[in-house]
Amino acid sequence: MRNEIYQAQTSKPGENPDNVMRIRAVGSFHVGGRSVTLGGLPERDMPIGGGDSSLRVDPNGDFEVEQMYAQYILLEEPKARYPMLMVHGGGLCGTTWETKPDGRPGWQQFFLQAGYDVYVSDAVERGRASWARYPEVFQSEPFFRTKKEAWETFRIGPLGGYRTRPSMRIAEPGTLFPIEAFDQLAKQSMPRWPTNDAAIQAAYDAYLRAVGPCVVVVHSQGGNFMLNAALHVPGTIKAMVVIEPTGTPYHATADLSALKNVPILFVWGDYVESNPFWKNTRDRVEQFRQRMLELGGIADVLNLPAGGISGNSHMLMMDRNSDDIARMVQRWLAAREVMK
Amino acid sequence: MRNEIYQAQTSKPGENPDNVMRIRAVGSFHVGGRSVTLGGLPERDMPIGGGDSSLRVDPNGDFEVEQMYAQYILLEEPKARYPMLMVHGGGLCGTTWETKPDGRPGWQQFFLQAGYDVYVSDAVERGRASWARYPEVFQSEPFFRTKKEAWETFRIGPLGGYRTRPSMRIAEPGTLFPIEAFDQLAKQSMPRWPTNDAAIQAAYDAYLRAVGPCVVVVHSQGGNFMLNAALHVPGTIKAMVVIEPTGTPYHATADLSALKNVPILFVWGDYVESNPFWKNTRDRVEQFRQRMLELGGIADVLNLPAGGISGNSHMLMMDRNSDDIARMVQRWLAAREVMK
Repeated sequence: MRNEIYQAQTSKPGENPDNVMRIRAVGSFHVGGRSVTLGGLPERDMPIGGGDSSLRVDPNGDFEVEQMYAQYILLEEPKARYPMLMVHGGGLCGTTWETKPDGRPGWQQFFLQAGYDVYVSDAVERGRASWARYPEVFQSEPFFRTKKEAWETFRIGPLGGYRTRPSMRIAEPGTLFPIEAFDQLAKQSMPRWPTNDAAIQAAYDAYLRAVGPCVVVVHSQGGNFMLNAALHVPGTIKAMVVIEPTGTPYHATADLSALKNVPILFVWGDYVESNPFWKNTRDRVEQFRQRMLELGGIADVLNLPAGGISGNSHMLMMDRNSDDIARMVQRWLAAREVMK
Repeated sequence: MRNEIYQAQTSKPGENPDNVMRIRAVGSFHVGGRSVTLGGLPERDMPIGGGDSSLRVDPNGDFEVEQMYAQYILLEEPKARYPMLMVHGGGLCGTTWETKPDGRPGWQQFFLQAGYDVYVSDAVERGRASWARYPEVFQSEPFFRTKKEAWETFRIGPLGGYRTRPSMRIAEPGTLFPIEAFDQLAKQSMPRWPTNDAAIQAAYDAYLRAVGPCVVVVHSQGGNFMLNAALHVPGTIKAMVVIEPTGTPYHATADLSALKNVPILFVWGDYVESNPFWKNTRDRVEQFRQRMLELGGIADVLNLPAGGISGNSHMLMMDRNSDDIARMVQRWLAAREVMK
């Protein structure tokens, strides 16, 4: 299957001459974080060579920790006024926006072809951002998302619908997620810590300061981080597409006035009503959206099933109609005057 | 400093029109690995919200583990016959080949501009490949490279030359590593496990099978993995540049005949003689190279100080003269008839 996926995504040159991207730079950087010194830890003998011998390791010393990672691809002649920052959700990293699990090009390529400089990041603790010792630096143990949890939480199938054997799994009726590629999505899964929110937020704030004026497309757990970053670094985010956020700046006393000038589009997929977690989450986010409207902000919503588009999972940037959704997102962004 | 680095790497459009890259696709995939089921582990209460409350986590279930990650950028009209696979060393990931720690474009961009489709990968356990529970899946604990170990092992400074305060660190005399950016390099550091070699190798073998005919540029710990992959997937690697490998297929009984038709260039930097680990390593690799020559293979060596180029560290793709070295590498590759 891997070879087929690989062949599908690497079509021959010249097949889509209109979609050629003229690139002036590709690169990456780490931003945020701090230096720590660990001391007083015992040396350890680590097994090597299949356990035949061991390696003496002194874990004490200096480390860089709590940085995040961002990779950029910059166009020779961007059509957009601002670069696009693509921000992933919980237990995942920037691969969310790259090639879809079934091998079709991802939103990273879509928005490059739409004319944006595109930045794809990995939050603190995940992917190329790396992670740090616990409990000495990160305060708790990490936990790993099971495939069952992903199947249910991503609303690919109903609660109780997961089975180990792929052919036995029960999907949502009419799902547009390519369920044959679900295990490929599971390979993108990242361990996560429940105690790193402050460090993740600090790095996102530093990231916004480093990049400057931008538009943001953010998913799930990332939504709350980027809404808070918009409050912490006011004036930087020129428009924001928030896909199924799991939270928002929620304190009733929070001063949200800096968000008033950030046009926001919330996007929701299908099967929300039958999932208590997501029903409750969407209700809370809708309350937040009403507060934004009361402040005089632009806070739109693209509720796909309400608009007659059924079948979308939480991972809607990977669903079969995901490029149609990307086009809707781009139309909304263009109406916010972010294009030249 | 971050902002300065960021500004340096994102120069304005139109500054280098000759270097524009015409790209037909950008994407990524995970390859290799397996599905595992964990059972019998106790549920845990994970602290959340700064410890105010907790989350009940059941760690049992199905997981995808031991896959690796590769990202590709494909040119509209590659000048090379084969894509280039860039493979990192130990305790690091694909960022080795991206923007240098001091903000200059990395070898990824260099070889794209030279006309190769470029693949940059993260090995099992690192970066976007993700990692798995231990001791249930990975058999040991990970360990973390200290900045002191990096300073010494990467031959940026002599043994004993590291200090916590950057201005007090002792560098090798005449070093070409941009020492002011050393802490930025330290942010690229990845935890590593001493017990994952078989899984890492299996995924590299699967990666080669998925991509097919290619050239390889590989660094340090990756060298031994890719030399073994060349033996396991014969006929696939058309030429190979092995930068300061820490090992080679060493069993005296190993059948190395499949390597006979793979032209190999070994590259070595400076300060090797004064570092016992590296002196010993280079001697062993040189013995391997002699075996390759005896088999009738092409096994060249680019020993930079022997050729009058002094000052290179183990991270020579990040040194101030790294693009000069890339040009030497490209001249050697071109002589192997890998260009159209």
